[in-house]
Amino acid sequence: MSLVIVGSIAFDAVETPFGKADKNLGGAAVFAGLAASYLYDHVKLVGIVGGDFGEDNFSIITDRGIDIAGIEIAENQKTFFWSGKYHVDMNSRDTLQTDLNVLAAFDPKIPESYQDCEYLLLGNLMPAVQIATLDRLSNKPKLVVMDTMNYWMDTALEDLKVLLKRVDVLTINDGEARQLSGEYSLVKAAEKILEMGPSYLIIKKGEHGALLFGEGQVFSAPALPLAEVFDPTGAGDAFAGGFIGYLAQVKTVNFHNMKNAVIYGSTLASFCVEKFGTDRLRELEQKEIKNRIGQFVALSKFEIGGE
Amino acid sequence: MSLVIVGSIAFDAVETPFGKADKNLGGAAVFAGLAASYLYDHVKLVGIVGGDFGEDNFSIITDRGIDIAGIEIAENQKTFFWSGKYHVDMNSRDTLQTDLNVLAAFDPKIPESYQDCEYLLLGNLMPAVQIATLDRLSNKPKLVVMDTMNYWMDTALEDLKVLLKRVDVLTINDGEARQLSGEYSLVKAAEKILEMGPSYLIIKKGEHGALLFGEGQVFSAPALPLAEVFDPTGAGDAFAGGFIGYLAQVKTVNFHNMKNAVIYGSTLASFCVEKFGTDRLRELEQKEIKNRIGQFVALSKFEIGGE
Repeated sequence: MSLVIVGSIAFDAVETPFGKADKNLGGAAVFAGLAASYLYDHVKLVGIVGGDFGEDNFSIITDRGIDIAGIEIAENQKTFFWSGKYHVDMNSRDTLQTDLNVLAAFDPKIPESYQDCEYLLLGNLMPAVQIATLDRLSNKPKLVVMDTMNYWMDTALEDLKVLLKRVDVLTINDGEARQLSGEYSLVKAAEKILEMGPSYLIIKKGEHGALLFGEGQVFSAPALPLAEVFDPTGAGDAFAGGFIGYLAQVKTVNFHNMKNAVIYGSTLASFCVEKFGTDRLRELEQKEIKNRIGQFVALSKFEIGGE
Repeated sequence: MSLVIVGSIAFDAVETPFGKADKNLGGAAVFAGLAASYLYDHVKLVGIVGGDFGEDNFSIITDRGIDIAGIEIAENQKTFFWSGKYHVDMNSRDTLQTDLNVLAAFDPKIPESYQDCEYLLLGNLMPAVQIATLDRLSNKPKLVVMDTMNYWMDTALEDLKVLLKRVDVLTINDGEARQLSGEYSLVKAAEKILEMGPSYLIIKKGEHGALLFGEGQVFSAPALPLAEVFDPTGAGDAFAGGFIGYLAQVKTVNFHNMKNAVIYGSTLASFCVEKFGTDRLRELEQKEIKNRIGQFVALSKFEIGGE
């Protein structure tokens, strides 16, 4: 049994108020895969890179025990490149450059060894590629989690709607939830989006935490208040990886476990932003994760007597 | 022993996407007093109104058992008037008109019967008036909670800084915390503000909940996700009233009780916004409050096994 993650694999050039990096390893599949690898042993990536990707970058992934059999190498092309600059508030950013390169014609290949997929994370990518990945798995996975972004709502809404009917969990941010539903109230937005297909919706609110909707319930997870956010790139992907990695570990999908999964996702995301690119997600120790989970418990726990 | 609340008493004209009201009873002292009255029996207001205030408005306050001996009536003047229009997101508003009227020369009078004050809420008002109130109490209250706003940071910062050294708890919103501290990170902002005097800081984040800092700890309280927010006016004051009302009820001031107090404050604020003006805060039942506290528990509770 395995957790399969499809998504972009990228070089990121990032500028934040704390510094600048020209060519960080990045991409949704990478951030999510690294995060998940701390919670589950059988993580397998699907993606595409160019001939410029390099052994050192593959090593960052395989050092975490992640299977790369599903990563295609297009030797004569270049790896997807994204560059962006964060504003002082770190919640908003300008995209400076996007070179699709290998991603432009990405047609995901699922190795036979990936057909044991039980948990599937459709990382942020063109919806048609997310659909193709799902189509090429012989058995319907036990749980399909899908991430997406406003860009696909603008350019590929019909595909997105088709896909929404086939996934169990959708993760998007608050602005995207409002855009997708046409509702300002997140409660109403969630109602409409759950009618579009998924059984669960996670609304990511960055420094304000996350909301989980499903089974007629709501859960509000805090974000860890951080003194410094060095680089927010990949935080949402690390969240998704931590979320599905925890569910793969505990094996039972229900609202109770999903609440914990949101806390694990938030924990991995909180590490992700502490250093540039994947730096922090490469060096985590289980003890650090356990301690931070403890911080989340302390942060949100209260006991009202007699209730 | 009593809970004394000083603050504005106002007529509010409010326009929201849901409707319009020309002359609602409002003001920090009113919203906070009504909220506190559900949690503690000995609530006493200090404020000023004009000859136009009317018996019906006094009744709204006294019907909740609130003492109005400290409300001065300036017969030949008019009550403070504020009008504002909320935007679609309900998080931002434009002030259309502010007529200080009686508030312009407000010099708070503390009746002898208020000298048993043990809990003091300095509702949003000119800092000099907040200071005068504190000065006129013979004994230092057990707990002083202070609310303020960006306007006083712009126009009366020195008084505000003097006052901060004399209060136990400051409640402000996230933008105000950033302005007061000059720090974007709320963690750093909290560190700096706690150095200015108060032992505890509450940062109100509206629909994103609230953060409580103090005793080297942090607590993150969720906001209840609401399908409809009819009128956000007074929510921050209802929060402060619920917060200090709960602490007056349980009598022991420590971080544990303060976390619960934040949940009670959030609960009262969540009711406040459900109807225009004070309408919802006039008709609450204890059972409704208890049920909503239960919703807050369900909203934020998670149990991570073995941690």
